Amino acid sequence: VSPSQRSATAEAAPPAISIRDIGSFHVGGRRVTITGLPARDLYYSDTVATPVPLAVSGDYYVEQMYVQYIALARARARYPLWMIHGGRGTGVSWETTPDSRPGFQMLFLRHGHDVYISDAVERGRASWASPLIWTSEPFFPAAEGTWDIGRIGPPGSYRSEAEARRPYAGSQFPVAAFDAFMKQRVPRWTTNGAATQAAYDLCLQRIGPCVLIAHSTGGPFAIRMALHHPGLVKGLVLIEPAGAPNPASEPARSLRNIPHLYVWGDNRSDEPSMKNTIPLAKTWCAALQDAGTTVDWLDLPAIGITGNSHFIPMDLNNEKVADLIQDWMVRNDMVSGS
Amino acid sequence: VSPSQRSATAEAAPPAISIRDIGSFHVGGRRVTITGLPARDLYYSDTVATPVPLAVSGDYYVEQMYVQYIALARARARYPLWMIHGGRGTGVSWETTPDSRPGFQMLFLRHGHDVYISDAVERGRASWASPLIWTSEPFFPAAEGTWDIGRIGPPGSYRSEAEARRPYAGSQFPVAAFDAFMKQRVPRWTTNGAATQAAYDLCLQRIGPCVLIAHSTGGPFAIRMALHHPGLVKGLVLIEPAGAPNPASEPARSLRNIPHLYVWGDNRSDEPSMKNTIPLAKTWCAALQDAGTTVDWLDLPAIGITGNSHFIPMDLNNEKVADLIQDWMVRNDMVSGS
Repeated sequence: VSPSQRSATAEAAPPAISIRDIGSFHVGGRRVTITGLPARDLYYSDTVATPVPLAVSGDYYVEQMYVQYIALARARARYPLWMIHGGRGTGVSWETTPDSRPGFQMLFLRHGHDVYISDAVERGRASWASPLIWTSEPFFPAAEGTWDIGRIGPPGSYRSEAEARRPYAGSQFPVAAFDAFMKQRVPRWTTNGAATQAAYDLCLQRIGPCVLIAHSTGGPFAIRMALHHPGLVKGLVLIEPAGAPNPASEPARSLRNIPHLYVWGDNRSDEPSMKNTIPLAKTWCAALQDAGTTVDWLDLPAIGITGNSHFIPMDLNNEKVADLIQDWMVRNDMVSGS
Repeated sequence: VSPSQRSATAEAAPPAISIRDIGSFHVGGRRVTITGLPARDLYYSDTVATPVPLAVSGDYYVEQMYVQYIALARARARYPLWMIHGGRGTGVSWETTPDSRPGFQMLFLRHGHDVYISDAVERGRASWASPLIWTSEPFFPAAEGTWDIGRIGPPGSYRSEAEARRPYAGSQFPVAAFDAFMKQRVPRWTTNGAATQAAYDLCLQRIGPCVLIAHSTGGPFAIRMALHHPGLVKGLVLIEPAGAPNPASEPARSLRNIPHLYVWGDNRSDEPSMKNTIPLAKTWCAALQDAGTTVDWLDLPAIGITGNSHFIPMDLNNEKVADLIQDWMVRNDMVSGS
């Protein structure tokens, strides 16, 4: 069965959606001119008989980002929904789950939103530029660390052999598809923060007024987009954001008209970075609320939804969580409730 | 105007299309276990106060490829259409044009095809693995060489300043958007041919019977997919394929049931690699025809369609060329003519 047949073979296939347009664009970046390097002889493929001289000196374009959009014929949402991936991911994080269920892209298209999905600077289709232009080395996401930070199982419970792994009992992550999940992960740098933020800010201006939904290290970038252009962000859904502004140095008041929803999964006490993340987020939320901002804190296990990993948009109950987010957006006047 | 509004603001917006499913998957690849390297201290973003130890030893997944699919509610085509990018591109090459017109993805969805678009091993969302696992260096596409090999203008006519560039008179390439085009280009290796072919072959088995449309260095990979699994390839559209099998060593006869369409742009005599490419393709086509294969050779300038670059799917007349390809698919019973 081809994956495109998944809906057709399901017992009750959901109705078709009516699409006005699908496309993509790159935004931001800069031209870098390199001079004085000799040409390389290059065979473009192993079926080509003769090499071609490839100039290394020349003009390069780096630090742009990539965005794909799907526009409905009749959106119910008042603004497009822009999905911003986390630290080892690309836009793929929203397109599908490792076990090939619909991702947030399809779920929110069905909920009536035009959907934008981006690959940040350095990731996926945004391209990258090391070692020729960026001098720092990338790092690569190993399975062990991804398993731990993703809270698929207790720290140290990953094993190479799938049968020997010890996930949390009742984990909502599609554990049997963890290897497939790892194939979605990409290298990253930690030195591109400013370039990444600049591209995000430009992209926000190109998209125009929209609602942001951001995961993990995508969270701080989304919050800063809102700080830089508060009039363009009509709602901020933060799924386990990896960091928060310091209210002593950032004016929470400028975000007072932007409803915020924080979403948190389960088994947080086992994961060391959460010990900092949660208090920082709570401090920032208090400042937002002091400024009169609508802030909702959706602690999934606290309302009886247990077992969610850090990768909530891919978890087995992602449709249920998407429904909760949709309800919140309806309540906050971002989408028609009909 | 947001790019998603492009159809809405056009004078005569095309009708909406009805979509059954959108999603993506990764396929192929292998696990690589690295041992004996020390952990690195890593700050995941510049808003995180404390570093996290990142294990470098561990399990990695490399040499998979990425595929996105869009499935119509009611396809007119008998088989899905799988679009295979060229040597410095990703699937973006089919999604859009540098000047934000609809790409072949949207054009062929409108023509009634389910569309698959892939990022080959090492490109875009497929991820990559250098220097940690792959020991060879990538190369980066400079603007000068891309301009020349793309036949946007005569060799050497690129300049950093857009006003100073000298494209061919009557070029069909959206010349004013050349900088935007360069932002789509990604690094590549020339040493991953076998891994790339292996992933393509696996992907073909997962998609099942389909029609392939391949550009440039994607062409040889598509032809080999057909040689390896002739029963799964129902048609082969080759847009300026960069290489051809040698009929002395490859059995053209095994492809005799697969209709072939070759498409060629203009100004070919100026570009050195074409001097080899065209004769190799003609020799292979002769062998195909000797075996009884339907082979059509669409030389665009020969039928009065002038100015096409190497990047035909992005050229200003891409809709016209898509129509010609569609007509050919209808004639060859790949799609209902209704």
